[in-house]
Amino acid sequence: MNAQDTTTVLTSDPHQRLGKPAGGWRAALYAIIFESDTPKGRAFDLALIGAILLSVLVVVLTSVKPIADKYGDWLHAGEWFFTVLFTVEYVARYLCVQRPVLYARSFFGVIDLMSILPSYVSLFIPAAHVVQGIRILRLLRIFRILKLTLYIQEYSMLGDALLASRRKIFVFLSVVFLIVFLLGTVMYVVEGPENGYTSIPTAVYWAISTMTTVGFGDLVPKTDIGRTIASFMMLLGWGILAVPTGIISSEITHQRGQRVLSLRACPSCHSAGHEPAARYCKDCGTTLPP
Amino acid sequence: MNAQDTTTVLTSDPHQRLGKPAGGWRAALYAIIFESDTPKGRAFDLALIGAILLSVLVVVLTSVKPIADKYGDWLHAGEWFFTVLFTVEYVARYLCVQRPVLYARSFFGVIDLMSILPSYVSLFIPAAHVVQGIRILRLLRIFRILKLTLYIQEYSMLGDALLASRRKIFVFLSVVFLIVFLLGTVMYVVEGPENGYTSIPTAVYWAISTMTTVGFGDLVPKTDIGRTIASFMMLLGWGILAVPTGIISSEITHQRGQRVLSLRACPSCHSAGHEPAARYCKDCGTTLPP
Amino acid sequence: MNAQDTTTVLTSDPHQRLGKPAGGWRAALYAIIFESDTPKGRAFDLALIGAILLSVLVVVLTSVKPIADKYGDWLHAGEWFFTVLFTVEYVARYLCVQRPVLYARSFFGVIDLMSILPSYVSLFIPAAHVVQGIRILRLLRIFRILKLTLYIQEYSMLGDALLASRRKIFVFLSVVFLIVFLLGTVMYVVEGPENGYTSIPTAVYWAISTMTTVGFGDLVPKTDIGRTIASFMMLLGWGILAVPTGIISSEITHQRGQRVLSLRACPSCHSAGHEPAARYCKDCGTTLPP
Amino acid sequence: MNAQDTTTVLTSDPHQRLGKPAGGWRAALYAIIFESDTPKGRAFDLALIGAILLSVLVVVLTSVKPIADKYGDWLHAGEWFFTVLFTVEYVARYLCVQRPVLYARSFFGVIDLMSILPSYVSLFIPAAHVVQGIRILRLLRIFRILKLTLYIQEYSMLGDALLASRRKIFVFLSVVFLIVFLLGTVMYVVEGPENGYTSIPTAVYWAISTMTTVGFGDLVPKTDIGRTIASFMMLLGWGILAVPTGIISSEITHQRGQRVLSLRACPSCHSAGHEPAARYCKDCGTTLPP
Repeated sequence: MNAQDTTTVLTSDPHQRLGKPAGGWRAALYAIIFESDTPKGRAFDLALIGAILLSVLVVVLTSVKPIADKYGDWLHAGEWFFTVLFTVEYVARYLCVQRPVLYARSFFGVIDLMSILPSYVSLFIPAAHVVQGIRILRLLRIFRILKLTLYIQEYSMLGDALLASRRKIFVFLSVVFLIVFLLGTVMYVVEGPENGYTSIPTAVYWAISTMTTVGFGDLVPKTDIGRTIASFMMLLGWGILAVPTGIISSEITHQRGQRVLSLRACPSCHSAGHEPAARYCKDCGTTLPP
Repeated sequence: MNAQDTTTVLTSDPHQRLGKPAGGWRAALYAIIFESDTPKGRAFDLALIGAILLSVLVVVLTSVKPIADKYGDWLHAGEWFFTVLFTVEYVARYLCVQRPVLYARSFFGVIDLMSILPSYVSLFIPAAHVVQGIRILRLLRIFRILKLTLYIQEYSMLGDALLASRRKIFVFLSVVFLIVFLLGTVMYVVEGPENGYTSIPTAVYWAISTMTTVGFGDLVPKTDIGRTIASFMMLLGWGILAVPTGIISSEITHQRGQRVLSLRACPSCHSAGHEPAARYCKDCGTTLPP
Repeated sequence: MNAQDTTTVLTSDPHQRLGKPAGGWRAALYAIIFESDTPKGRAFDLALIGAILLSVLVVVLTSVKPIADKYGDWLHAGEWFFTVLFTVEYVARYLCVQRPVLYARSFFGVIDLMSILPSYVSLFIPAAHVVQGIRILRLLRIFRILKLTLYIQEYSMLGDALLASRRKIFVFLSVVFLIVFLLGTVMYVVEGPENGYTSIPTAVYWAISTMTTVGFGDLVPKTDIGRTIASFMMLLGWGILAVPTGIISSEITHQRGQRVLSLRACPSCHSAGHEPAARYCKDCGTTLPP
Repeated sequence: MNAQDTTTVLTSDPHQRLGKPAGGWRAALYAIIFESDTPKGRAFDLALIGAILLSVLVVVLTSVKPIADKYGDWLHAGEWFFTVLFTVEYVARYLCVQRPVLYARSFFGVIDLMSILPSYVSLFIPAAHVVQGIRILRLLRIFRILKLTLYIQEYSMLGDALLASRRKIFVFLSVVFLIVFLLGTVMYVVEGPENGYTSIPTAVYWAISTMTTVGFGDLVPKTDIGRTIASFMMLLGWGILAVPTGIISSEITHQRGQRVLSLRACPSCHSAGHEPAARYCKDCGTTLPP
């Protein structure tokens, strides 16, 4: 991707479906809020990222009791400042799109609403930390802006690798699920409620924490047979950990290869994707330049 | 594998050895139960998967004491409902195969029996959770059906990679076993029973949990020498964790390469390794057969 | 890289910017302290590595209370011995470079100062273990010498692989940060302060320790929903652990390929990619230059 | 490696340096004990593996207190039975080699002695479990026989991959050591003895257990700054775990490639190692057969 392409990516508008107004102040507002190819648009994006991060910091600090006890009023004021700010922004987005219903129903439309609603709800129902939890969804809003950045290539490459491997990963996970279910049940039978394996779901939770090599240690096998099975499970988990790594690793290597292949183009039919050692175009048979 | 091949896989019958009756209601029943290329066969498979998952859910919920105390009767009823259902299915399988003895001795025949037997046994011997444990083997029955699905390619590819690596993995595991035995014994000598390393098997269990990076924390080194050895073991375990990953990763990359490249040869210069989409030989420019 | 190149690396001077005096005792001192291609320079480097390691050992032993209580005076004496030694060396470095200000501001100039300053500061302000901590930065001084060794190729190759992957790793880490923030907050809401998840930062700390498969076990989910979410997080963490491995693995494979293949081109047909040991072009049979 | 080569491996004698006697009963004994290409030699090897494993089992069971209390006499008898057996074997090895001093000083000569000595020593000095620990070295004796098996290819391939990567792994480990030392000291300064980080070695032990994702949980950060640093360390450890995996993975892929390359030989100069796509011998320029 050369410099020109990058510019295209930066100025492209993923919100086109929402409908940019033809002119007037609404078109100008749209350019600032939804686009990022003008100085004002870029400034708006940067300010928005800053506001989101600060508002998330307020949510996080409110959850820390000593800080909340001491600076509660300031945090409360900050929370309302950002709520009002995001409300203004939310309304502005409605004002400048042609199809507001489409925006309201879109993924980011819902996230934008979830970012401001909890504060208003908490005026009537003071349900402490559940409401705070929803506020943290504001973080997702950052992704709207990240989509427009220079890192889009890396995102898409990693995404492609995961997407191309999704069937293999599904198969792998289904086998892992079967194993943790069977071995978790075995441990439930072997260790029993007297050693903390109070039910099959608990034992499966333990089996997952063991095979993923997390090993919290809140539940541990205490019988000799249990420890033997656990040892086997740890080695097995260790071994099959290699499988997803191998899948992704092979996929990334393949994707990189694809990108390398596509550099040389045929002078006659302009097809790309020739191997480095190829001397004739694989599509039309013309001699390729070295 | 093109569309036709996939159909072949979907309609192929891995149970052929059991013998499909020539005609009559038994052949029709066989087609429904053992095959999946008719609408009725597919419906049966879907219903069976649903029944298996629900019956496993009943087993799991029965193991959770608060739920078992509250809804014990419903769960008991559900358990018997599925037991009778699977018994009917088990008998039906016998009725429609030509060689019932072969079915009874086959892997899935045994699993099918293990899915229903515990309930009948528990009528006479009420051995609570051991019996439940065996019931969970019902999960394995799902694999009979999965074998016939579109995911068979991914299963076989992962299986092939593991199979091709089995000698390397065996060698690797034998070395790992030797290391955990030696280092576990060293820790038993160094830390001793007074720090919880009560016997060599216990110390080996600890060594495995350390080198696989699980680290439960139920046993931890307390002496300075013990901690030094443990530090060394953790770094060693971390390092050799790379080996199985490398083996599998290299194998999957190799298998992918084999599938992509080995398909076609040039009719003129006999060179191989053409890309799937190539239409002309990359070495001599001759038109490739499709 | 052949023997001659290695010599070049060994004798090259990464400190050239500091300015080597034209002659006299200062040039001789410079050659000993900053260069390593004379017997005296090598001897100085070896002695310096020894002194650094011993002085670090003194710092480490001072932190162990039983040893500090018993051999406190010896350790104190050793500390001052090395402080004076490094002070002399520090002054000597100033004396023999042309641009002392540049040295004072350079990375290693600051590290050299941080290696001796704490001891002098502790004469006035006896702030026990914080001061010791800074002393450990002496370890970094070893890297100045390592830069000149035969291992420079491996360092640069690993460094290049990490550098080439930095954008992908940044993207990966940003996604991981988002996930641990969101899931940590979910756990804070679900488990709440009564189960130890006292604040969002604490819950995020737990989420990181779970998804990286560390699993200390100081915080563990206690509710059923919490355990279910934790199980999901462990499997997710396990799965995405494969991504950085795949990135680095693919990058190292690529770098290796680049180094091996890009060295020579055929003088007749200009084809590249010949093996290091090849003597004739694999495409046209012409003799390759060595 | 074809069938004939494998036979060569199986019949080759890694003990040749010890000197096989020219004839007589000593040559016959040598063939049985040191070689494995005669039926008697193979039977001896199998019997020896069995005896070693059984004697190790005796050592392991002796360490389990309940079993030792109950079957102490039997285990004691078994221990002496194997000690006498291995003593006889040890003497027999001396009798049939030409250069006994070389055997006594060889790696396996020392291991053989260590396998029997502890029992005789314990007659005079009854130092319980330290002596048992040394006995476990018997396990290493199995490797003498494994060397001669069909798995030698896999052993050598894995060994080659590790050997070829040893410089990169050394560089990697030196960087890891530096990081755990620096970050361990930081945690010692931040958390201090009051939170369990009693000395720098203890803090480094914790840093290793954290960065290798083992996470025992015997030491955990309790301050906010400590938890922040720990979070950073876990993510860092997770990231750099990818490096050794990438190194080994790339090396195994390379080794596999080397083996594939070496299949086609030049008809003129018999050199091997041509690339799959090469059409002319890279060593003499002759046209290669397809």
